[in-house]
Parts: sequence; C-alpha cells; structure tokens
Amino acid sequence: MPEVKTYESKVWRVNVRTQTLNLGPVPETWERLGGRGLIARILLDEVPPECEPLGPRNKLLFCPGLLVGHMLSSCDRISVGGKSPLTGGVKESNAGGTTGMQLTLLGIKALIIEDQPTKPGWWVLHLSTQGARFDPANDVVGLGVYDAAAKLIEKYGEKVAIALIGPGGEMKLQVAGIQNLDKDKVPSRIAGRGGLGAVMGSKGLKAIVIDASGGQKPAIQDPEAFKEAQKAFTKALTEHPQTHTYHDYGTAAMVQMCQTFGSLPTRNFSSGQFEHADTLSGEYLRDTILQRGGVSKPNHPCMPGCAIQCSNVYGSEDGQQVLVSPIEYETIGLMGSNLGIGSLDVVAKLNRAVNDLGLDTIDIGAALGVAAEAGLMEWGDGERALELIDEIRRNTPLGRILGNGAAMAGKVLGIERVPVSKNQAMAAYEPRAIKGTGVTYATSPQGADHTAGLTIRDKINHLDPKGQVELSRAKQISMAGYDALGACIFAGFGFAAAPAGTIARLLNARYGWNVPDDILQALGKETLTLEREFNRRAGFTAKDDRLPEWMTREALPPHNAVFDVPSEELDKLFEW
Amino acid sequence: MPEVKTYESKVWRVNVRTQTLNLGPVPETWERLGGRGLIARILLDEVPPECEPLGPRNKLLFCPGLLVGHMLSSCDRISVGGKSPLTGGVKESNAGGTTGMQLTLLGIKALIIEDQPTKPGWWVLHLSTQGARFDPANDVVGLGVYDAAAKLIEKYGEKVAIALIGPGGEMKLQVAGIQNLDKDKVPSRIAGRGGLGAVMGSKGLKAIVIDASGGQKPAIQDPEAFKEAQKAFTKALTEHPQTHTYHDYGTAAMVQMCQTFGSLPTRNFSSGQFEHADTLSGEYLRDTILQRGGVSKPNHPCMPGCAIQCSNVYGSEDGQQVLVSPIEYETIGLMGSNLGIGSLDVVAKLNRAVNDLGLDTIDIGAALGVAAEAGLMEWGDGERALELIDEIRRNTPLGRILGNGAAMAGKVLGIERVPVSKNQAMAAYEPRAIKGTGVTYATSPQGADHTAGLTIRDKINHLDPKGQVELSRAKQISMAGYDALGACIFAGFGFAAAPAGTIARLLNARYGWNVPDDILQALGKETLTLEREFNRRAGFTAKDDRLPEWMTREALPPHNAVFDVPSEELDKLFEW
Repeated sequence: MPEVKTYESKVWRVNVRTQTLNLGPVPETWERLGGRGLIARILLDEVPPECEPLGPRNKLLFCPGLLVGHMLSSCDRISVGGKSPLTGGVKESNAGGTTGMQLTLLGIKALIIEDQPTKPGWWVLHLSTQGARFDPANDVVGLGVYDAAAKLIEKYGEKVAIALIGPGGEMKLQVAGIQNLDKDKVPSRIAGRGGLGAVMGSKGLKAIVIDASGGQKPAIQDPEAFKEAQKAFTKALTEHPQTHTYHDYGTAAMVQMCQTFGSLPTRNFSSGQFEHADTLSGEYLRDTILQRGGVSKPNHPCMPGCAIQCSNVYGSEDGQQVLVSPIEYETIGLMGSNLGIGSLDVVAKLNRAVNDLGLDTIDIGAALGVAAEAGLMEWGDGERALELIDEIRRNTPLGRILGNGAAMAGKVLGIERVPVSKNQAMAAYEPRAIKGTGVTYATSPQGADHTAGLTIRDKINHLDPKGQVELSRAKQISMAGYDALGACIFAGFGFAAAPAGTIARLLNARYGWNVPDDILQALGKETLTLEREFNRRAGFTAKDDRLPEWMTREALPPHNAVFDVPSEELDKLFEW
Repeated sequence: MPEVKTYESKVWRVNVRTQTLNLGPVPETWERLGGRGLIARILLDEVPPECEPLGPRNKLLFCPGLLVGHMLSSCDRISVGGKSPLTGGVKESNAGGTTGMQLTLLGIKALIIEDQPTKPGWWVLHLSTQGARFDPANDVVGLGVYDAAAKLIEKYGEKVAIALIGPGGEMKLQVAGIQNLDKDKVPSRIAGRGGLGAVMGSKGLKAIVIDASGGQKPAIQDPEAFKEAQKAFTKALTEHPQTHTYHDYGTAAMVQMCQTFGSLPTRNFSSGQFEHADTLSGEYLRDTILQRGGVSKPNHPCMPGCAIQCSNVYGSEDGQQVLVSPIEYETIGLMGSNLGIGSLDVVAKLNRAVNDLGLDTIDIGAALGVAAEAGLMEWGDGERALELIDEIRRNTPLGRILGNGAAMAGKVLGIERVPVSKNQAMAAYEPRAIKGTGVTYATSPQGADHTAGLTIRDKINHLDPKGQVELSRAKQISMAGYDALGACIFAGFGFAAAPAGTIARLLNARYGWNVPDDILQALGKETLTLEREFNRRAGFTAKDDRLPEWMTREALPPHNAVFDVPSEELDKLFEW
C-alpha cells in the first residue's frame, strides 16, 4: 500500500478490477485546474471519447474545486465526472456536503476510479491515510441511500464523509446520481445530473467512505493575503440582498418569479403558469416550516461554514419527523407544477422517494410529466406518482422506462413533447419564456442544465430572442469558472460584488500563483473549450446544440412564446 | 383534382394535412435517379436533416427503381424512404410485391407524402388515374396487416396494390415497417427496416391503396435493344447456380453456411454456432414443406415474373393452413438460433405474429434476444417469446420497450450486449466472424443492414481483418446501385454474369439515355454520397461508423474472434 502524505496534493488512482490504489504526482497541466475544469482535462487526457459509458474504459472522477478546503463560504463543493451514460458526452455534476472537504484533507487533488470488476459484487471503497481498502458491501446493497448511509455511519464512524449510490445507481439507470452527506450526516447532497451514479454502479461501488482523520488542511502560501481576500468576499456575500432572499426563502423563491415570467413548467411543459403556484411558493414554504417548527428549519447550510444557508429541513405537521431535507425549487418545479401537483407535502414525499433511490429529481420529474402525457397518471395525482416511483424501485419494465429519465421515457412511450437537450431534462425554467436559459440548455456541453448558465436574474426582455446568446455566453463562462473553483452558484453574488480581483487574490495567496484578475473567465473558457473538445471527439455536432423541435413550433401560454433564437446564432456561442 | 396522364412520369405530392394532391414535373436532377438513389436526393433537397422524424417536416417517400415496370426478373422493387426514427439518419427500405409496379403504371416517379394531420384520425390514401382521395380508415385501424389487407381488398378490389402499416406503425414504434401485397394478395413484402411504418403512422395513414386501372406500362425508347438486353440478363440469371440454390432452398440456405462459418447469431450474439442448426436449415425447411404439401410451397415469387422465386409458403402439418409466407433466413437467424429456438414451426409462429404487427422481424428478434439476456424469457422458450410479442400488441410498457427494437431494449433494460449499429439491429451474419459484413454494418449510412453490402459469398478469409474494407466498399457501391434500379439483391447474380454493359443497355433502351457500362457503380457511388451527406447534416460523425464496443472486446465462439478492423480503415471506406 502506498504511503499517504496528506500535505502533498496527489492523484489517487483506484482500479476496481485489481482493487489497488496508485498514488501519483499531479501532472503539470492539471495543477491549475480543479473541479469541473480538471474533470474535463482528465476526461480528454484519459477517457476514449467514443467509449461505452458503463464499460471498463470510462472513469469516474472526484475533483474538489480549487478553493476547497478552507471553509470559504459556499466554496467547498465536490465535482464528480465521467462520460455521461445519459448524454454520451462530458459530464460534471457538483454537490455540497462534506465529500470535497474530506478528500482535500487527504491531499486528494483527483480521485480517479478505473476499469470494471470482472465478477458481480458490490464494494465499499474506504479511503484514509492508510490508503484504499475494499470492504464487501453486502449489508448495504439494495438499500436506499437513507438506510445505507445510516448503516455506513454506524460502521465507519460519525466523522467520515460518504459518497454513495442508491438502488437507481445499482440498476445503472441513466439518471442515477451520487449522494453525499451533509453536515448533519444526511445523504442529501446529490451530484445528480447525467447518470454518474450509474457509472459508479458499473464500477461495482455502492459507496466511497472517506475518513480524513490524520489529514490536514491544505497549506496556504500567503495566509495574510488569503484572510484579507476571504474577508472581502464574505462581507460582499453576506451583505448581498440575494443572500438574504435565499437565506429566507431558499431556492423556492423562484416559484413566484417564474410564475410571474410565465416560465414555471406546468403539466409537462405545456404552460408557463400554474394555478396553484401560491401553495408551492417560497413564502408558503417558509410559513409552513415556521408554523410546524420542531425538526423543520427554514434555513440550513449544505456545507459547513456557508453564510447563505439556502437549504431547509421540511418536517411533518407535528414537528416530529423530517419529510425531506431540503426541498428545492427544481424539485418543486418538476415534481410540483410540472405534474399539476400544488401541495408541498406531496412534493416532499415524491422528493424523498426519488432521493432515496439516488436519482435526479429533475429528470425523474420530467419523466413523470411525460408519463402523465402518455396517460399513465392523471395530472395532480400524487399517489399515482408515488406508485410510479415505486415501479422504479421494483425494477419493473415501466420502472426502467421512467427511471432512465425523460428522454428515454419519451422515446419508449412515443411522446414528442419531452423537455430535454442532449437527452438531459430541462430544469424548472421554461426556455421559451426565459430564452437566454434556453440558449444555455441548447448549447451547454453538459446538456440542459440551469447551473451551467441561468439568465433569469438578468435585466433583459426574456421573451426577445435578441441578445440571449451573448448573455448565455457570459453566464456559461462564469459558471464554468465557479464550478472549477468549487464555488456554488450563489457564491457568485459575493464574488461579483466583492472588489475586483478577489478570486485571483484568493488563488494567488492559496497556491503562490500570480493569476490575473480575470481568472474566473479564463478558467471558465478553458473548461468549456476542453468540454466541447471531448464532446466533438465523442461525435457531437452543431445538431446537438439545439432545443427539441416542438419547442420551436408549439406556443407556450401565457405569452404564446416559441423558442426562436436562430440556430446560426447558437452556433456562434463559443466564438469568443 | 389535377388531371393524371399516366404516360407522363410525374412527382405526386400528397399533403396529409390539407388532404390535397399536387402533380409536378420531375426535376432535372431527379430524372436519372430512382429507388434508393432518388430517395437520398429528395431527402437532401426537401427534408431538414435535423428534423424530428415523426414530426411534420419529415416526408415519406415511395420511389420505384429505374428498371421497374417491365417485369424484368427481380427488378420491380419499391423503395420507401424518409428520415429514420430509429437511426436518426437517411433511410431507404425496399420490398417486392406489387406496389412498385402499380405506382409505375400510374406514371409515379416519386410519391412524396408531406406534413402531418392536425387532428387525430386514420385514413386510407387512394391513388388512381382519378388522382388522390382520402377515405376514413375506421374499419381497418387497429387491425393486424393480414385482416386489414383482406378488408381493404374486399373494399377496393382484387387488382389494387396496397402498402399498409400494422398496429406497430399505428403505435409509432421505431422498428415498424410498411407491408406490401405479394402477387397472391398477402401483405408479406415488408419495407421493414428503420421505422418507416412509424413515419407513415405519424402521417395518419393506415394504408395506401394504388389502383392502376387505366394506367399503362412506361414507354420504352428502343424496344428491340431492351428486349435483347433483357434476354441476356434473364439467361445469365436463370443459368446461375445461386439462382438454383435460392430457388430450391430460399434464403434459408444460409443457415448451414453461417453455421459452418461460425457466424450464425446464437443466444443474443453470444455464439456463432447453434446446436440445433440442422432443424432450422434450408434443407430441413424444404423437406418439411415438400412432406407437408397442400398449401406449402418450397418456392414462390415475391414479385410477378421473378425467375428465382426464393420465397416459400410454410404451411401447417395437415397441409391446410398457411403458417407464414415466407419464412426467410433473417427471421430464422434472429428469431430461431438467436433465441435458442430450434423449431421452424415455432419460428413461423413468431414470424407471423411480428408480421401481423407490421414490425421488422430482425429488430424484434434482436430485441427478444436482449430480453432473454435481461431474464425476461428463457432461451428456447417460444411460448414466452409469443407472450412478449403479445405485450407489444397490447401496447404495454414492456411491449413498447421491445417493440421499439433492440437498441432501445438494451438501453432501457441495461444490457450492454446489444447487436446494433446506428441503433439498427444487425442481420443474421455475425460481424466478428464475417468481418466484411461487419464493416458494412458499421459504415453503411443505413445502419446495420446486410442488404447494404453482404460479403459472405466472397472468397476471403472472413476472420482476417485485412481487405474487408475494400470488399465492403465494392459491395456497398454495387448494392446501392441495385437498390437504385429496383433490382433485388439476387438479381445481381444475373447482372454480374451477363455480358458487360447489360444494365447500361437496359437503361439506355428504356430511357433513350447514353449511360456508360459502369452505370451501376456510378449510381451506387452517387447514392452513397448523397446519403452520407444527409447523415452528416443530421449530425452523424465517424463515431457513428463503428460497431458496439463489446464486439471489439468479447470473443465469439467457436473462433474466439473479436471485431478488429481498425477504425482508421473504417474511416477510409468512402474514399474512392
């Protein structure tokens, strides 16, 4: 077993066929990248772009962002990556929780999981200062993430971080994600998009347990400068009005905003407004939580040290029992209004069930919308939606249709109105009403993904096709930059309001570099360029940078908008 | 209604939304093309390559080959085309029967079916010298092709040709084909590959009835020269030993040949030899048919005037009842050995059930193999296979998984060993054992398709990767040429053995042209070039010209062969 020196940043390479660990130096071209950017680089360097995503040539990557390890507010995210079984292209999905921090404390710059077991079987990969160990996973295989995590914590102790898959990942469903523990040891922080849980399943891993005891925080080259920059960032963040909105209402604040813009996905994206939006809203959510009290909490940090705390804990009426933690806007949009469901209690139940399977609530919500369109459930029938989720759990043919996400459900069930791009379901921002986000959905190398470049807060006529490509371009660049840093989408409010060059100062102080003030844009552009190149080699063309045809033809109420940003403009997005 | 002058070759354009017919002249660039070549040209000229295949921008095309209309043996085939819902690319699928001839008698160079109805409903499109008429299809919708055809013949008379879809096309399943009547009025000649039946379903057409009464044979510019060339071709064809083999044993002659080469798909392409091949063989089939007598016939022409008569009628033991007509090698390979089934009676039952649904037996056979691999049936269990086909008929979730073909079944059920290229199932020639045909499967713009360039009869070491690209190239060019002529794959034996220039003499005599002796190659190259260009614009890249990864890794018994023709060589196939 190789000797672990946690003060040295290393590449940890785990082969699941031979069950061996190799520790190697960080290649020079990887050093200045982290998170999403490093994932794109490693994929291009090591994964054949044409490979079968669930075969032995794909790799599963865990890369903490460049700023992870210092409890900078909202900047300790873990990026997970690989070739996506859903999109067939590059995939990075990031999450909060404690995984990023613990990997960093072990000195792990990149964890690369390679190859495939030759025999069936499930394993827990245990990482610590002692190296890597494979423990049989017999006692947790088949369990939902809540029970599995509880058992693993019992076995491995309260201090470990855990990244694990649910039954969905074991079944290799194309929208299975990887759940990470939050600060309260709840497996609620999912790297949810694009099927990386299926990749983990194809490697025979039920869970990765990270025990950083004996590890250490990464060295800071210029502690004074770091502290000063950190202070400026924290101040800007905590003073930002959006921080307060998200603190109070969480992401659910978006319900009323989208309702106003006519961009709230309703009944399988057939309308942009929902008649029961008020009982799904952030205000209603906050009131309910405050009224219920007990275990319920209107705000909650997904990572220790977060100043925003946009998460929440949604408890039962009697205040005794956690229904789900957290309930997020994307889930409300996709499993609430998109299914004609106007009750947060019902959404919470669906949310928990899908979480427990370790699946992406966005893609499953969209798949259920497609199922309703196909006559498999009535709009608003939460009980039936739960039954359909149970079909997934029971691995029935219908369950596999839905559990593989909206794109596949549409193809199998013969439904054209399917809200996907590059096979990945759209988040809860209707692209016909928020056209800049539609441009992001169409062109992002990640597939339809709001975190790749959301434009709803920008001052632009969202219904006008003009200027949307420019706006999306700017957003995609900065978001790819934040994803390389390990910063959450909302940390951006703080960085944007902080003195110019704050990010550069943090990086220079941390690493002893001398990067320029526009490092965020440089990181973002490099990341996107690498991702585009991987996709190109995997066979993507301009045709993949489109929204589905029906969205260009079918008018969305109430604005009767179609998606009319010209394809020629979309094709120029990456010309910078 | 426009006036039909059947002596004039015209483009018939039918709009299913407005239910109108437009007759137009043949554009100059279309004149010298027919069948598959004309389809590629029209798709490039008129169908947006990125369009939704089941949406209003796709078109359904019927183009008789250039030699259709003269009862030249095996040369009256109809090419059907459109953008494929299965492959997402160019699609031509051709069939025998009487459709090609009857369209030609009406002077139809190309039938172009456009747009989409705005309201649900099913129609029969009736074409005659009176133009086009839309009759409600209420009495035949939902019926299998056998019952539907019988009702339509009752209504429209014995002399009509009919192209119709089964329940599979109505359900818009991605491997639904279009059945055509044979000379005995049985809807047994299917344009089966690539889902054109779903395209027809998306246009609201259950059937197209062609009544050529009052029509006339196309004029021949130099009747004497035509007659002479025809004589030379017929002589060469009837004297060719393969003609006799196919006359006696039909395509089922391939069973023993593939068994010998280790290329008989067995148990979902996990072996190349089947222990019960003898009871599936052409010899066994012929003996059974001769022994049973009555309605059974060891040979039968799929088109009037055919000298080969490779088809058959497979009747019940008591000689009273037709089980299926015909039983072909592809079905025996995919629904027999591929499912571990060694009984022709069982294969005949499965064949009939899938025919009746109007689905491609190759892709459904491959999907059932995937289902068996996924544990949904035992190998060799014909009763269960019939049940699974019944799931398709009942439009259940499982039925839709299988009814959409092998590629989708593999994706939904999570099976990697799926024998497809460009999402289309491979025919019954194992590409690891017959590598030239593997090259064709990988590179043909049509997806995996043996008729696009079969190499099994060529003198080459089929296990050696060397020389396979050159061989496949030559075959693909000549097959694309034959498909443009309306000639069946076996007519090629006659043309190849006839005096050089026979095809050119036929065309020059028929049309008054002056094409050179190598017109077959010229037509083939033009066709392939047009098809490749359509696919390129639809987003295809070199990555789509590959066999599935597992075939390059998993050794096939008994020769333990993998597919090892280098990708770089595949990429040079179309450099001529």
